[in-house]
Amino acid sequence: MILSKRGSKLVGEPQPLVQAHFKCAKDPFHPVDNEDGYINLGTAENHLMFDVLGGKLNQLQGIEEHHTHYDVLYGSESFRNALASFMSRKLNVSIEADKLAIASGSSAIIDMLVSVLCDAEDGIIIPSPYYPGFDHDLKVRSSVEPVPAYLDVKDEFKLTKDVLQEAVINASKRDIKVKALIITSPNNPLGRVYTREELEMCIAFCKEHKLELIADELYACSVFDGSEFVSLLELASKSGLQIHHVYGFAKDFTLSGFKVGCLYSTREEVLEAVRELTYFSPVSTHTQHVLSELLNDETFVDSFISTNQQRLNNAWSRTKQALDNADIPYVEPSAGFFVWIDLSKYLKKKSFDSEMDLYNKLVDDAKVNISPGKVFHCEVPGWFRVCYARPEGYIELAINRILDSIKK
Amino acid sequence: MILSKRGSKLVGEPQPLVQAHFKCAKDPFHPVDNEDGYINLGTAENHLMFDVLGGKLNQLQGIEEHHTHYDVLYGSESFRNALASFMSRKLNVSIEADKLAIASGSSAIIDMLVSVLCDAEDGIIIPSPYYPGFDHDLKVRSSVEPVPAYLDVKDEFKLTKDVLQEAVINASKRDIKVKALIITSPNNPLGRVYTREELEMCIAFCKEHKLELIADELYACSVFDGSEFVSLLELASKSGLQIHHVYGFAKDFTLSGFKVGCLYSTREEVLEAVRELTYFSPVSTHTQHVLSELLNDETFVDSFISTNQQRLNNAWSRTKQALDNADIPYVEPSAGFFVWIDLSKYLKKKSFDSEMDLYNKLVDDAKVNISPGKVFHCEVPGWFRVCYARPEGYIELAINRILDSIKK
Repeated sequence: MILSKRGSKLVGEPQPLVQAHFKCAKDPFHPVDNEDGYINLGTAENHLMFDVLGGKLNQLQGIEEHHTHYDVLYGSESFRNALASFMSRKLNVSIEADKLAIASGSSAIIDMLVSVLCDAEDGIIIPSPYYPGFDHDLKVRSSVEPVPAYLDVKDEFKLTKDVLQEAVINASKRDIKVKALIITSPNNPLGRVYTREELEMCIAFCKEHKLELIADELYACSVFDGSEFVSLLELASKSGLQIHHVYGFAKDFTLSGFKVGCLYSTREEVLEAVRELTYFSPVSTHTQHVLSELLNDETFVDSFISTNQQRLNNAWSRTKQALDNADIPYVEPSAGFFVWIDLSKYLKKKSFDSEMDLYNKLVDDAKVNISPGKVFHCEVPGWFRVCYARPEGYIELAINRILDSIKK
Repeated sequence: MILSKRGSKLVGEPQPLVQAHFKCAKDPFHPVDNEDGYINLGTAENHLMFDVLGGKLNQLQGIEEHHTHYDVLYGSESFRNALASFMSRKLNVSIEADKLAIASGSSAIIDMLVSVLCDAEDGIIIPSPYYPGFDHDLKVRSSVEPVPAYLDVKDEFKLTKDVLQEAVINASKRDIKVKALIITSPNNPLGRVYTREELEMCIAFCKEHKLELIADELYACSVFDGSEFVSLLELASKSGLQIHHVYGFAKDFTLSGFKVGCLYSTREEVLEAVRELTYFSPVSTHTQHVLSELLNDETFVDSFISTNQQRLNNAWSRTKQALDNADIPYVEPSAGFFVWIDLSKYLKKKSFDSEMDLYNKLVDDAKVNISPGKVFHCEVPGWFRVCYARPEGYIELAINRILDSIKK
């Protein structure tokens, strides 16, 4: 046996969403060049903003000698300063640059954070349906156990104390020591902005159960319908709760390819431990320079965010129209790039096997990739996440293809 | 206790070389602007080539939409193709792109590789003196034990079967299960190009002891005196030994700030396991694009490497002159950015404490940072690594400062 025990666990099937992404990437739909290609609505990327961002990025590329050399591996001082200033403005709380750590992607940040908070087999509660990457980020390298807190479909997926309480009981039955609670706000996959009351309940719950609070606010600036977004940073600060906050450039800045994530933590020892690990997930000095310059142009950034929100709003309006026309129910989103739709009436049986059959049919027959609820740990089968931050025409065509395929 | 057990181990003093690097970076010597600043000869960076590379990089920066989106996380196909073609040309062996994995730095590659080859407490033999980062890369995240194979100073640090054999015996006394051998070729810190015979001995040794061979050839294209460099890839391929080969852009391409490393492995399962982990250490799609374009301009790359070798040769000649004038003994280098010098005659006692006293005196009094042998696990005290890939005048001044300080 060549591989170590831990190495052996890494060999096998890749994540289903990653597989689907690359299947679509090999033969992608294009309205002119490839009308019969795959329409990928499974990847939470924003394809609406490059006309605004591209030119700006190209202006900022100029490379100087020091951009080619080592800088602080948990993030250059200038980048952390720029980011602290940006986050302070947008999250309504004072962020100190020396409480930030930068790494190559938010997944890296989460992996490192859970590794320093939890030993192997410890658990973390996550309201579900949840972003499927968490399974990967918690388990693959750090062997931390996700404990789903199942939001009730009949209660419109509301986040209540009862569902968190039930997760604690379930963990205890499974002999899992729960160390933390992850809240993704605005939520992926629901597209929901949590209310101040829901978030305050989470904070009280962490205090009561002595849990560390991990706030994933990757979509903080992608609220598009005027809903009030309250950062957990603001509420935790007011209530005196320590917090670990994850942010990044993949979502609000549409730069998923740049692989830049960051941690803000109010616990010095957590920050110190994570910084030690960022040695293995650093970001290019030059990439940090480009993003610093971008953030420092506040006028551009504010205009970019505002334009993005308008375009997301338009993209959602078109999607809403198409879903309404197709008589497909959904949870109305306020933020993010996706909508959570209910295809349960098209399942042969009310089972996750039937959900997967429908998923495969849509990929193979309709050539449309949307993501099945099972990978999000939804409690009931039939729900799918549809990413709609795509150019005009893509969603409408995809929904037509879906209906044609279902009705065949 | 907030930190996990594994998290607690990460808190403490940072690596001494990293500390020294940033101490110098705060008040760096400049011949005009800051004559009294620190001269940092402790960091293995090449500061000779930006006038050649900078313009080229700036031509290649143009950013297109797909550079901002996800690509294969273990390296885009185009980048792996470009790298495979480059490595095949330079290492005299046929490299397949689908046996490569890319990550954010060679340290990340080594950490992941040893993690999938070894369980915690397993050991890896490394001829010493060795690159101090290995201690960090093996231990911090993966808890793998470096087992030094002490090269004999009296035998001019030659790599022999006896020293490897002795390391196996030492490991066995310490109850360490040895899984692999790391060979850094050309060597850091010795600046040596190993002979074909030495490398063939290593391959035979791995076969005899059933060890995995890890070849670190980061300085493959930085041989500057015409010495023959034989890649372990070529020899392993000829002898039918499986191999794990680490390369990157920090040294031969002088791009330490870009944080790009790569693994080539002939073992499919090792590659698969490492690729799974690269999810947490990806490289920006745009950075990969820039480096692909760079590699694909073979004329530029060949000329760049040749110019770099000439300039390293000149920098070494100037350094040699200064060392000879100062009557400081050294191991004559053929490759890399550094020379291994012997200051043992200036130690108060033949001890590592005295070595550290001398080191601190040189940093605090002479404001020159060179790296003490102890951090390289040299068997005897008094040796230092001096990085000389610096503009004309830096080394000469540094050696004058060293002598003045010692003679005070």
